[in-house]
Amino acid sequence: MNFIVSKKAFYNALTIVAGAVSHNSPLPSLTGIKIDVKDNELILTGSDSNISIQTRLSNDTNEQLNLIVNEVGSIVIESRYIMEIVRKIESSEITIEIVDGSLTKISGDHAEFNINGIRSTDYPLIDFTVCEQSFTLPSKTLVDIINQTTFATSDKETRPALTGVNFKASGNELKCIATDSYRLALKTVDLDTPNTFNITIPAKSLNEVLKSLNEEKDIQVSVSNKKAQFFIDTTIIQTRLINEDYPDAERLILKDFNRFLEVDGYELLKAIDRASFIKNEGISIIKLTASPEEVIVSSRSQEVGSSEELLDGAIYQGEPIELSFSGRYVIEALRALGNARVKINFSGEMKQFIINSLVDESIIQLVLPVRSYN
Amino acid sequence: MNFIVSKKAFYNALTIVAGAVSHNSPLPSLTGIKIDVKDNELILTGSDSNISIQTRLSNDTNEQLNLIVNEVGSIVIESRYIMEIVRKIESSEITIEIVDGSLTKISGDHAEFNINGIRSTDYPLIDFTVCEQSFTLPSKTLVDIINQTTFATSDKETRPALTGVNFKASGNELKCIATDSYRLALKTVDLDTPNTFNITIPAKSLNEVLKSLNEEKDIQVSVSNKKAQFFIDTTIIQTRLINEDYPDAERLILKDFNRFLEVDGYELLKAIDRASFIKNEGISIIKLTASPEEVIVSSRSQEVGSSEELLDGAIYQGEPIELSFSGRYVIEALRALGNARVKINFSGEMKQFIINSLVDESIIQLVLPVRSYN
Repeated sequence: MNFIVSKKAFYNALTIVAGAVSHNSPLPSLTGIKIDVKDNELILTGSDSNISIQTRLSNDTNEQLNLIVNEVGSIVIESRYIMEIVRKIESSEITIEIVDGSLTKISGDHAEFNINGIRSTDYPLIDFTVCEQSFTLPSKTLVDIINQTTFATSDKETRPALTGVNFKASGNELKCIATDSYRLALKTVDLDTPNTFNITIPAKSLNEVLKSLNEEKDIQVSVSNKKAQFFIDTTIIQTRLINEDYPDAERLILKDFNRFLEVDGYELLKAIDRASFIKNEGISIIKLTASPEEVIVSSRSQEVGSSEELLDGAIYQGEPIELSFSGRYVIEALRALGNARVKINFSGEMKQFIINSLVDESIIQLVLPVRSYN
Repeated sequence: MNFIVSKKAFYNALTIVAGAVSHNSPLPSLTGIKIDVKDNELILTGSDSNISIQTRLSNDTNEQLNLIVNEVGSIVIESRYIMEIVRKIESSEITIEIVDGSLTKISGDHAEFNINGIRSTDYPLIDFTVCEQSFTLPSKTLVDIINQTTFATSDKETRPALTGVNFKASGNELKCIATDSYRLALKTVDLDTPNTFNITIPAKSLNEVLKSLNEEKDIQVSVSNKKAQFFIDTTIIQTRLINEDYPDAERLILKDFNRFLEVDGYELLKAIDRASFIKNEGISIIKLTASPEEVIVSSRSQEVGSSEELLDGAIYQGEPIELSFSGRYVIEALRALGNARVKINFSGEMKQFIINSLVDESIIQLVLPVRSYN
């Protein structure tokens, strides 16, 4: 193996695949990035066995690559070493070659690094075959799905399904649900091609996909009952699915409400944020006291003291209500709605309430109140 | 106590004194900021008993303060609560008043916060009397002293003196020394008034002083054998001294050298940085191999591999030398010299070497080599 490549283009590609690499992998080869050198192409692969990223580089698809292949071959190099070396080398082009067995020389300018690599035959075989079911989403829609749902997933491994986002397609409709059983986010989008599937993608993998969605373009998504794939330019991000049935969470969303609060989402968020410095056992419990006359956000603890704030420009309809909720949950829900003007729908003091954006019907946020003895 | 004040000016002053406050203080009142309201003045105090900061605010010295005192008095409020409340309140002016005992109301715009304060009589008495010995330094000189020495102090409490910077004045000369016994920094500056003292100031306190040195002005420094004081505008930063004799470290600095390397400090720093990814037990050991023909920076470990780099534009005089050192120590020394062109003076392969800036004679950095078996 022996090739010359643009430092910048190579470093950018390393950054993409390094996102999948875990430094604590029990399999030593998975702490590395696999470099496959073909006649006219470089293929970089990173994986932690849950998520795998592969990117292909060639002079045809990347004008700045300046790839010259002197000898084909492949090697695996510890991710953090190759990242640091390539980042710090002060040369527009770098040369990488296997000098002896798995000893790999990386050189540029006056500097030369000889790194003990791992033979590529020790790297697990990762199947990147394209799945049968496919559809295409604008990158912006995919960004919205991820930003508006993943925060509501659970971080507890006791119910693995809840650590992921459920994607359920039926005809031309895709519903994406996340819940940790105290709150829920539901995003509905249109599909360009009819599909039928019901899969759950780990939130961690979706957040890794998010990092690669910087430009506006169409993203092909392919799924099977084992994995999901995202095709971004010449990169494939592939993730395993969560192997546990997702609960029928949509069924739990109430439809009938009798009290309504319309308010600027950002003003509400800031008022809750101001009240949140008062914590009870580390959690900010916020009380909302609403009537057609006035809407008040407050918090209280025996130890610290209390806060109280009148919400300006809020419109409330229905019988007065008083309920308490986790400040963080409502802040995250409002942020997911882009701080737009919202309508909050209530049906009782200990019942779920639903936050709708007044400018985007595709997303709803549900939060369960908590008991408060203050 | 009852006063109205500009939110912004008050917040800026809180930020200054909060630098001294520790949230883990064993004395509950020291987790707070003391607010003293006089007829025409606010006095804010924060302290962790090692370092104390007091700032005075009045309409005379601060045109943006807009202070209106309705009732004098004093209270102590938990630092993180008052900081968070004042920062987040959306109002140009805020009102603070004691409503009942130590319950303090902070209000602005539509928001109102009632915080359980601590009576100011529970706050320790801190003596801010000005010390007898005084001199004045331009803020830039004080910034240089702190930046060029504190990093070389020790973080181990086994020899308390080494956790501070030794300030030794004799006539119009002030010598500032820091060492952790593996490296040493010595800064020499002129004093405007003759002084004689030998004190050691905790590095932590100096770094706190540094935060307040944003503008070019003259800073009065006053010292006794118990404490040191820095007067910045209407703020006093006062620190206890380290109560252990400082070793006569200057005596250990060699004067005779027989081999010299002249090199661009920033180029050397970058070469060492590139070689530093190779660590042995967490430490980057860098080897320098120098002769009049070539100067090479290298590193090596059995496990990872090796690096080697030819230093461009280096001028070496004397018998060839080969020595190893901690990469971090030399990087920090070069950074303290402002990445200027440097002259490194050697007297032997296992003897200290001295790094001099070629543009600033007031500062020298000394580093001890380490044994290397590679």
